[in-house]
Amino acid sequence: MKITFVIGGARSGKSSFAMKEAEKISGPKAYIATAQALDDEMKERIRKHKDGRGADWDTFEEPLNVADLISEISSKYGVIILDCLTLWVSNLMIRIQNTEYRTQTEDKDIGILFETLQKINHPLHITHNVSRIFIVSNEVGMGIVPENEMARRFRDLAGMLNQKIAETADEVYLVTAGIPIKIKSEK
Amino acid sequence: MKITFVIGGARSGKSSFAMKEAEKISGPKAYIATAQALDDEMKERIRKHKDGRGADWDTFEEPLNVADLISEISSKYGVIILDCLTLWVSNLMIRIQNTEYRTQTEDKDIGILFETLQKINHPLHITHNVSRIFIVSNEVGMGIVPENEMARRFRDLAGMLNQKIAETADEVYLVTAGIPIKIKSEK
Amino acid sequence: MKITFVIGGARSGKSSFAMKEAEKISGPKAYIATAQALDDEMKERIRKHKDGRGADWDTFEEPLNVADLISEISSKYGVIILDCLTLWVSNLMIRIQNTEYRTQTEDKDIGILFETLQKINHPLHITHNVSRIFIVSNEVGMGIVPENEMARRFRDLAGMLNQKIAETADEVYLVTAGIPIKIKSEK
Repeated sequence: MKITFVIGGARSGKSSFAMKEAEKISGPKAYIATAQALDDEMKERIRKHKDGRGADWDTFEEPLNVADLISEISSKYGVIILDCLTLWVSNLMIRIQNTEYRTQTEDKDIGILFETLQKINHPLHITHNVSRIFIVSNEVGMGIVPENEMARRFRDLAGMLNQKIAETADEVYLVTAGIPIKIKSEK
Repeated sequence: MKITFVIGGARSGKSSFAMKEAEKISGPKAYIATAQALDDEMKERIRKHKDGRGADWDTFEEPLNVADLISEISSKYGVIILDCLTLWVSNLMIRIQNTEYRTQTEDKDIGILFETLQKINHPLHITHNVSRIFIVSNEVGMGIVPENEMARRFRDLAGMLNQKIAETADEVYLVTAGIPIKIKSEK
Repeated sequence: MKITFVIGGARSGKSSFAMKEAEKISGPKAYIATAQALDDEMKERIRKHKDGRGADWDTFEEPLNVADLISEISSKYGVIILDCLTLWVSNLMIRIQNTEYRTQTEDKDIGILFETLQKINHPLHITHNVSRIFIVSNEVGMGIVPENEMARRFRDLAGMLNQKIAETADEVYLVTAGIPIKIKSEK
């Protein structure tokens, strides 16, 4: 299995690039959206995106248990897009905002995501169908330090996770204004 | 006509790079500033920049009707710099902030800019003098999601427009700390 | 002496990259931290980082007089890391926030840093031991324009300084998600 990590700013075209790359691979594809449809505008946007994807695609809306979901569906789909990682970090943070063991819980979730990715990738698991996972993420650290403490924590966490995923990934693209720059290639 | 799109962060040296590239081309040049001199500091800054450009240059201050202006002056100048696109989006948004038909008006303006660029580029219009347009723009999507709704809309709009212009452009540069990276080359 | 400039977002892995590159050079190394340990969390973080560096390293905590410090220690260390430039700009701004001659003072400090770097680099000063300086800095201009005036000034100043240092530097790396992209090479 090959992991492709796609990082870019908001509205940089990173998701479209991942979709276009995924479309080149035949067979059943899964699109995991971590965005939550909290209002009508968002519901409409998600519906439109869903309609935009072809018959090859199944869409899963999963704000939190991304790791479990990838495990569950990995035998059924050849290609999985996880879109996007930073929204997932944000969802995690909102969920555990009021718990005492904030950091530990986040770290556990991040740990499980890594284990899942490694398990899918592991030679012992070649029965799994997944040949390619695209992980889409936001670069969120190139602005001014946010005044809000929670936003700073989010920025730190998202940045660290981006580093980890990029290290694990076989290839990494940085997308700016719709144009991908390959910054890591397969060995 | 060749379109060069130059994108970068604030104070990344993107305008200077566009200027330097433009200076390599001889003949009359137009500099379109979308910045508005709302206070003395800004007026002084604009005056300084103006003086910094040579005798080859005419400066136009146009916060909104950029498309019309490009049409009007395209027969007179060989090189046009539009600096910058995101400020223009911001000006558009401020103007129509209180109107009902916000999105439609913006989309119309963006549509007219594209039409103008394509018209100038069109073979039937080779009587136009413009051989090169530099469009300078900000990457604004690599920070934290802004808390302000208007800022989020601006970020979305600016990002989408950056993608569109980059797609149309013959070459695209990403500028960081004054150093240009060519991320799209002429076919 | 060679200057390597490393720029990236928050938590982009830029410091780790500078450290890894520095470790390849043998001999005594100095790590200049411009971060100030204002609370226990910060103290703990700084202590951890310090312990993470090997026996080859001496750590200096210097929020402001970076230029003097580099001058002082340049005869003793073969490698110096300055981490990070934007925090130093921020420290400068906080110090002179209430003075009248804000800009002049900042400019003077920035001037001294440049002079120091050039002095060390100067043939007449080859008795200095420094063979390599790594300057680590943040890209802070790729988000939304900050509403806070002070933050806008900081963004402008940091961006201009980044340009200047990148121009002086022998090589420049842009780091995203832990992955360095070389954007300027030695002539």
